[in-house]
Amino acid sequence: MTDISKEELDGIYAFAVNLGKEAGKMLLEAAKLRMGDERVSEERKEHVQKENAVDLVTETDEDVEAFIKGKIVEKYPSHKFVGEESYSKGSSRDYLIDDSPTWCVDPLDGTVNYIHLFPMFCVSIAFIHKSKPLIGVIYAPFLNQFFSSCVGRGAWLNETQRLPLIRNPVPPMPEKAPSGCIFSCEWGKDRKDHPDGNMHRKIESFMNMAAEIGGRQGRGGMVHGVRSLGSATLDLAYIAMGAFDIWWEGGCWEWDVAAGVAIVQEAGGLVTTANPPEDHLTAAIEEVRLGSRLYLAIRPAGASQTETGRQTQERTVREVWARVRNLDYSRPGA
Amino acid sequence: MTDISKEELDGIYAFAVNLGKEAGKMLLEAAKLRMGDERVSEERKEHVQKENAVDLVTETDEDVEAFIKGKIVEKYPSHKFVGEESYSKGSSRDYLIDDSPTWCVDPLDGTVNYIHLFPMFCVSIAFIHKSKPLIGVIYAPFLNQFFSSCVGRGAWLNETQRLPLIRNPVPPMPEKAPSGCIFSCEWGKDRKDHPDGNMHRKIESFMNMAAEIGGRQGRGGMVHGVRSLGSATLDLAYIAMGAFDIWWEGGCWEWDVAAGVAIVQEAGGLVTTANPPEDHLTAAIEEVRLGSRLYLAIRPAGASQTETGRQTQERTVREVWARVRNLDYSRPGA
Repeated sequence: MTDISKEELDGIYAFAVNLGKEAGKMLLEAAKLRMGDERVSEERKEHVQKENAVDLVTETDEDVEAFIKGKIVEKYPSHKFVGEESYSKGSSRDYLIDDSPTWCVDPLDGTVNYIHLFPMFCVSIAFIHKSKPLIGVIYAPFLNQFFSSCVGRGAWLNETQRLPLIRNPVPPMPEKAPSGCIFSCEWGKDRKDHPDGNMHRKIESFMNMAAEIGGRQGRGGMVHGVRSLGSATLDLAYIAMGAFDIWWEGGCWEWDVAAGVAIVQEAGGLVTTANPPEDHLTAAIEEVRLGSRLYLAIRPAGASQTETGRQTQERTVREVWARVRNLDYSRPGA
Repeated sequence: MTDISKEELDGIYAFAVNLGKEAGKMLLEAAKLRMGDERVSEERKEHVQKENAVDLVTETDEDVEAFIKGKIVEKYPSHKFVGEESYSKGSSRDYLIDDSPTWCVDPLDGTVNYIHLFPMFCVSIAFIHKSKPLIGVIYAPFLNQFFSSCVGRGAWLNETQRLPLIRNPVPPMPEKAPSGCIFSCEWGKDRKDHPDGNMHRKIESFMNMAAEIGGRQGRGGMVHGVRSLGSATLDLAYIAMGAFDIWWEGGCWEWDVAAGVAIVQEAGGLVTTANPPEDHLTAAIEEVRLGSRLYLAIRPAGASQTETGRQTQERTVREVWARVRNLDYSRPGA
């Protein structure tokens, strides 16, 4: 596998940015069809009533992925393509990302939001080489928020505001983190009411993070706020922005997070595993494995008077690990 | 108390809309000072580091309220003014809204979000007469989302898209609601780890709404998604939009919800109390009392083949009441 030159990477980045913009526009146009647009034909109107929303959204999802894939195959026929929709149709959930130049795409993240027309939905496009996400593009067209990054070229909001937003200087993680932090987490789809199931493990962990200091048998983290948006991709985008301090989640797939991880890392954030290792106080804090389905992200952080930015992040990771339970999301076949 | 003529109300609405736009701009400009704007002086930069963010935000909050109040006093000297900041400084939390023409204002809702620069913050301005919120204006400047309504004149997003967004026709509430619904709720500030405290009552209720059908001793509601934005005002705005189906919350004050309630009601939504009455299957579903601190909002709904829109909403209210616990938010002095 040869390296990719700076010029090649610039070209791929420019291509990915345009592709993200076009795909986001497609999402918004399909959403508008479902709004009360008087110019939509009567026939179309019947088709777009809410009861059909799920089918329509699946259709949009597939159309947008086909569009993205078509453009990539045309421009970079030698690159691999891993897309959410292509997976869904197959039976395998094998991890397909290797050292080849690979595109990892979620045409529509935040599907439930999209069905309900809650603005937190987006397209997510990552370019990965040698197993590292080098380029990330996330576009939430209903919010007019476009996030992008390329390794070595910074992470950006709307191509003009460098991320994180607060950067003169970038503040360290709070001294008493998770206290003072915005904690982002998702309820997810696994709602089995099993006392040791993922839902209960998650909610117990959320409550530990939220409860007053001293509460929950000493686990109370008294975070500043708990947020759930229903989009893993946008959770990561807001981590890169510095708006969310901590994101903890299990169950996502690589296409949900690849672009977000690229943007978070380029902005200076840290992404590691959600599940606390046994020696969570001393274990080395390893970079996330994209296909692991278990993610803990910490926002970009600068130095304090006594710690480097990375030290404030790692301290926060250990404080989160001390408060959360292991989640059980294995990879089918893995 | 005399009635307000149609013309007067038009004038008040136009005034409120402009006021909201100007106040929102002030919020965004103050936020930009905290972002990495190179044009900000070095002295200012030191002042705006994150450790000072809370003071700065309090300052912005007070400045924006003073601005709004000044404009109202100048234009409508006979109207009453109830603002969040004015309350905070006093010791009383008496409910001050009576039959007089009254402005009820939160200069900055989503304060924690604003501190962290998470875009879900807004200004909220309501005009109330004879205890009814007649006009609502909500502006989230970082999202470019401006919500407004005036009784009889519809509810709007960005003055161009009528709410709810899906309206040809407006869909009924799902047949098996809360299943199929987006449920919006907030963790709030009360994090006491008391088994019968508000935090535990809330989380128990959230889990009932989320769990699989049949789970939680039959209380499982299997909602489509659980969302927490950290802004009661924007929760209501998204209910009016139809993006959220159900919002259930306790602990807010009238300035957090007055504009949102106006917009939800004008869009066709229903707002009643969070706490289930004893005879929750048969009790009349009463309109919310603004000062009650307990709110349950249901999105605008159209008729199904067997029910009116209102019937689908009331059915949903009872299904929520069957799954939630009473919250304990009294009014100091009440």
